[in-house]
Amino acid sequence: MTRFVCRDCGLDFDVNVPRWRCDCGGLLDLDFTPHLDPDRLAGRPATLWRYREALPVPDGAELTLGEGFTPMLPVEIGGREVLVKQEQLFPTGSYKDRGAAVMMAMAAHIGVDRVVEDSSGNAGCAVSAFAAKAGIRCRIFVPADNSPGKLGQIELYGADLVPVPGSREDTASACMAAASDCYYASHVYNPYFFHGTKTFAYEVAEQLGWKAPDAVVLPAGNGTLLLGAHIGFTELLGLGLIDRMPKLVAVQSANCAPLCAAFEAGAREVSQVATAPTLAEGIAIGLPMRGEQMLEAVRETGGTCLAVSEEAVLAAFRDMGRKGFCIEPTSAAVVAGAAEYVRTADADEVVVTVFTGHGLKVGDKLHKLAGGV
Amino acid sequence: MTRFVCRDCGLDFDVNVPRWRCDCGGLLDLDFTPHLDPDRLAGRPATLWRYREALPVPDGAELTLGEGFTPMLPVEIGGREVLVKQEQLFPTGSYKDRGAAVMMAMAAHIGVDRVVEDSSGNAGCAVSAFAAKAGIRCRIFVPADNSPGKLGQIELYGADLVPVPGSREDTASACMAAASDCYYASHVYNPYFFHGTKTFAYEVAEQLGWKAPDAVVLPAGNGTLLLGAHIGFTELLGLGLIDRMPKLVAVQSANCAPLCAAFEAGAREVSQVATAPTLAEGIAIGLPMRGEQMLEAVRETGGTCLAVSEEAVLAAFRDMGRKGFCIEPTSAAVVAGAAEYVRTADADEVVVTVFTGHGLKVGDKLHKLAGGV
Ligand SMILES: Cc1ncc(COP(=O)(O)O)c(C=O)c1O
Ligand SMILES: Cc1ncc(COP(=O)(O)O)c(C=O)c1O
Ligand SMILES: [Zn+2]
Ligand SMILES: [Zn+2]
Repeated sequence: MTRFVCRDCGLDFDVNVPRWRCDCGGLLDLDFTPHLDPDRLAGRPATLWRYREALPVPDGAELTLGEGFTPMLPVEIGGREVLVKQEQLFPTGSYKDRGAAVMMAMAAHIGVDRVVEDSSGNAGCAVSAFAAKAGIRCRIFVPADNSPGKLGQIELYGADLVPVPGSREDTASACMAAASDCYYASHVYNPYFFHGTKTFAYEVAEQLGWKAPDAVVLPAGNGTLLLGAHIGFTELLGLGLIDRMPKLVAVQSANCAPLCAAFEAGAREVSQVATAPTLAEGIAIGLPMRGEQMLEAVRETGGTCLAVSEEAVLAAFRDMGRKGFCIEPTSAAVVAGAAEYVRTADADEVVVTVFTGHGLKVGDKLHKLAGGV
Repeated sequence: MTRFVCRDCGLDFDVNVPRWRCDCGGLLDLDFTPHLDPDRLAGRPATLWRYREALPVPDGAELTLGEGFTPMLPVEIGGREVLVKQEQLFPTGSYKDRGAAVMMAMAAHIGVDRVVEDSSGNAGCAVSAFAAKAGIRCRIFVPADNSPGKLGQIELYGADLVPVPGSREDTASACMAAASDCYYASHVYNPYFFHGTKTFAYEVAEQLGWKAPDAVVLPAGNGTLLLGAHIGFTELLGLGLIDRMPKLVAVQSANCAPLCAAFEAGAREVSQVATAPTLAEGIAIGLPMRGEQMLEAVRETGGTCLAVSEEAVLAAFRDMGRKGFCIEPTSAAVVAGAAEYVRTADADEVVVTVFTGHGLKVGDKLHKLAGGV
């Protein structure tokens, strides 16, 4: 039986009762046993729900906007071929739909009718869209100084915006307070979100003919994809569907690289570091809540952490555009990381990376970023 | 052997020699015989290239950004269930990728290294992206008073923008002049474009288990999807893969409805009508070049033409948003048309329609359109 389990004290809880952290304050994971028979996948829909038996959501509770099973295309990056999952093609424009689909399906299943979340970015969009699909009311807490223009997609999905004066942390605190009597649809705390993003790993393995790649280069902001991929590949290994773990390579902006700093220092935990603004806004997280877990995922798989410069991000953004791919600057940071990774990788390594968000997310900036005046 | 054929005088031409109209000035279609064995589709990629044998492009010439086989989801429209192809999920954000993929694949195959096109909208984006992918230089002619911000996506794909002073017609003329010694990658004239958009029909039929729906509600600007769908369903009927044609229902904005006017008047040709600005900019075509062909497609299938009001477009836009779908206002016009169509349709009709473009295409307007201030 699936249970919430505290990472700190080991206490476990009923997943049918909303909860976003342990009484001790610890982060929750899911204790869940996946199943999957690859021979039964033929003819199933090309969405993440094809991995039904590996998802911790009861049959019949599926919620879909047509998300998942994104194409994986060979793209020349850093002078060689890298396989790139096209996660910018998700309904809301980013891979966050993986997490939101599974999390909101479970929320709807246990009868939740209102949720709160604190993200004015891609996670907020994804949660709002799937809340709309499920007919669940959604409040998104955002810093009061956010420009309203950036929130249009969330508003379109019918979510209520709750502006909070002060810092990004004040917004988080206000949301946590609201979460005391409302379901917290958090992309950081809610383990169902990560059991949605894990389908990334299932798709990569299936698209490679049930093989693991040698390395997977992923963004590292709050680690929703990094940790999801780690869960997914670990489950696939346990199921005997792959025969080894790929190296997980975490990419941050050099201007906001707490994970890289901790990784290099050999630290067990991630600490706050000095940061500067970056084009890669989506991964500019000064202190990721699941930092320790992210470090473990990278180290356990023999991966590494890479920090990329603003110049490298902009160059990767333009290079991908010239190849026909319109991606977010945050997404370009991962491409820059992949280019850096393959510089020293063995020539025969199968390297997978990801376009995380669509360039149309920053449509009004494309002209300038593309080099226009 | 595939040939260009003039719709007016019947002359035919070699498809390996670039040409965009007949010497008599007539529009060109393709004389092409499709093949398809549905039993061979299992395991093929979830892109439009799965219909290989039905595409007029030689083996090995495929060009892909991961486009096609879009999900078809049930959505409540006009108080009942309508099946909606999610064509906003294409790489460049609209179904125009269908046409551009096939057209640019053929262009690359015959050795073209430079193309011109005149569209600052979704067709221009799609052509630019696939030109980039094919390594073909692309010039896009645009009215000089176009705001540069709207052209960012095209610039990102590396196309050269050629501003033309004067009207939209002046832009078209300048492009046609350039097309005298350069491949004209036109979404209006080039029949390969329509043999790309025809894959819409193949996907609908396959997704319905090789059945035709009763009606398909489509936008009618230049008719790239309407005519593509007509070609596709006609071919499927010829192949015995469906057993009757669906009714094709063409939707226009009431503020720009030349096809509706001609349809109601029983005219054979479409004439210029008075127009007013509309939210549905993408279908605001005062005089569609292939108007006669569009009328034939609608009449031959027993379909109809519907004009929708600005209020209906805005209401449909917001309604879809509240259901979790972020679409362009132009796309919302089609939804409004579908709602209008089902009002009088038989209750047991299987009705298919389409989300044609992603709402993120007008990201900076979402806040206002969603009802914000
Ligand atoms: C476009 C994009 N890429 C990457 C990320 C990385 O996030 P995370 O490390 O939480 O997976 C985000 C997060 O918002 C994002 O929006
Ligand atoms: C979003 C969108 N929908 C619909 C259309 C309809 O075009 P057509 O009638 O040429 O298929 C267009 C054309 O540009 C478009 O951009
Ligand atoms: Zn605990
Ligand atoms: Zn002729």
